[in-house]
Amino acid sequence: MLCVGLDPKMDSIPAVYLNEEDPQLAFLKQVISETADHCVAYKPNLAFFESDGVEGMRRFAQLMDHLKASHPDHLIIADAKRGDIGHTAERYAKAYFDTFSCDALTLSPYMGMDTLEPFSGREGKWMVVLGLTSNPGSEDLELLELKSGKRLYEEAMDRMAQRFGPDELMFVVGATRPEMLASIRQRCPEHFFLVPGVGAQGGSVDEVCKNAATAEGGLLINASRSILYPGSDAAGSHRAAAAHLQQQMAPYINS
Amino acid sequence: MLCVGLDPKMDSIPAVYLNEEDPQLAFLKQVISETADHCVAYKPNLAFFESDGVEGMRRFAQLMDHLKASHPDHLIIADAKRGDIGHTAERYAKAYFDTFSCDALTLSPYMGMDTLEPFSGREGKWMVVLGLTSNPGSEDLELLELKSGKRLYEEAMDRMAQRFGPDELMFVVGATRPEMLASIRQRCPEHFFLVPGVGAQGGSVDEVCKNAATAEGGLLINASRSILYPGSDAAGSHRAAAAHLQQQMAPYINS
Repeated sequence: MLCVGLDPKMDSIPAVYLNEEDPQLAFLKQVISETADHCVAYKPNLAFFESDGVEGMRRFAQLMDHLKASHPDHLIIADAKRGDIGHTAERYAKAYFDTFSCDALTLSPYMGMDTLEPFSGREGKWMVVLGLTSNPGSEDLELLELKSGKRLYEEAMDRMAQRFGPDELMFVVGATRPEMLASIRQRCPEHFFLVPGVGAQGGSVDEVCKNAATAEGGLLINASRSILYPGSDAAGSHRAAAAHLQQQMAPYINS
Repeated sequence: MLCVGLDPKMDSIPAVYLNEEDPQLAFLKQVISETADHCVAYKPNLAFFESDGVEGMRRFAQLMDHLKASHPDHLIIADAKRGDIGHTAERYAKAYFDTFSCDALTLSPYMGMDTLEPFSGREGKWMVVLGLTSNPGSEDLELLELKSGKRLYEEAMDRMAQRFGPDELMFVVGATRPEMLASIRQRCPEHFFLVPGVGAQGGSVDEVCKNAATAEGGLLINASRSILYPGSDAAGSHRAAAAHLQQQMAPYINS
């Protein structure tokens, strides 16, 4: 169930990579080689590539080529949180599903269902749309109560789940509100949840699995910083940090 | 008040550019040289660059360099509709405000106020956040009625306007619901509105100005397709199409 977030930051990269031609890319390749046996998906966050401009996007393209060639069975989720009207959304679908060959793309639902349509009906491609996120600001809009009695994120998820099946839609559901995960799972029993917020953001793998795992798993639990920068917590290796998280998930996969 | 949207599509570009080294860039430069006297802002939409991958982002960087060098007084709005948690949002701010030197960036408010904070407090830089958009899907979430009686977009705009002043926040408000523009202007009397949806999407410049212009203008009215691909409507030139729109706005600027 483990998804490894790939969010490189030049000023956090260990000194051993600094003599490489592209230190960030070399670092990410090492993370991938150490973690591939313990995870099923990788989630590069586009902000960490766009911030370096054209050079960063070249790095993103090379990373995609590397992942496709070395680990073709791992799911690649471009974490970009795009969202725009139809003819623009078509261009984002082209960018991430075709040009960069990603398997999935995170999206924002604010502008409505017609902005998600262009990502639908693409064999083997997933839209991963924001439901309830893990940050404090989720109280500002996502958790607002509607006249109907539902919360905004519940209405959003209901509309999406009604329109798009689990073969093309997943939801982003944060790990930092475990008390809500069980009711969200009841609403959407069949869709996969991509769950960020374990590790550095404080969410617990155990709580997430207890509340939201299905018979088939149904979860992609993402960790970024705790695997990229394990420090002394996990014998300092990406592999140990990933293995540790995988072990926490294991009891829920065979049950 | 005119903002020209720069959304290049290879298959829509006139044949005369096809022998250029980069036909899309040559086309955009021509659009800019014809329209600069009639507009105050340019709004490149990132989807139309990302869809061509690294090559497209190189084109975007070259376009930014060209605009900064040739028209330093025009506002450049990167239409990217980003939105993510704090440390990721910081990277998007770095990408568009620093690396690509844009003056403004469009953002989605779904994840809450803390996702907007990293774009605040940057002298001469603006966040342009989605309020009510021009597409049919705006009915799915933006127009939902809350328990408080407000619509979602109203609550979102109130929270943002309370927190961020008109010197750093603008709103995206669509032109296709002119009957709502007047009440939106009452809610937010001082913030600039970026108004897409005139021209190809059917909104009327006159209706927009009547309902939402302030004494200082207070509007950036965007047209993309009607200026990029004027066809026979406006003597076929970008200049004529832009001049035509500017003339429609002129009566409201001096009043």
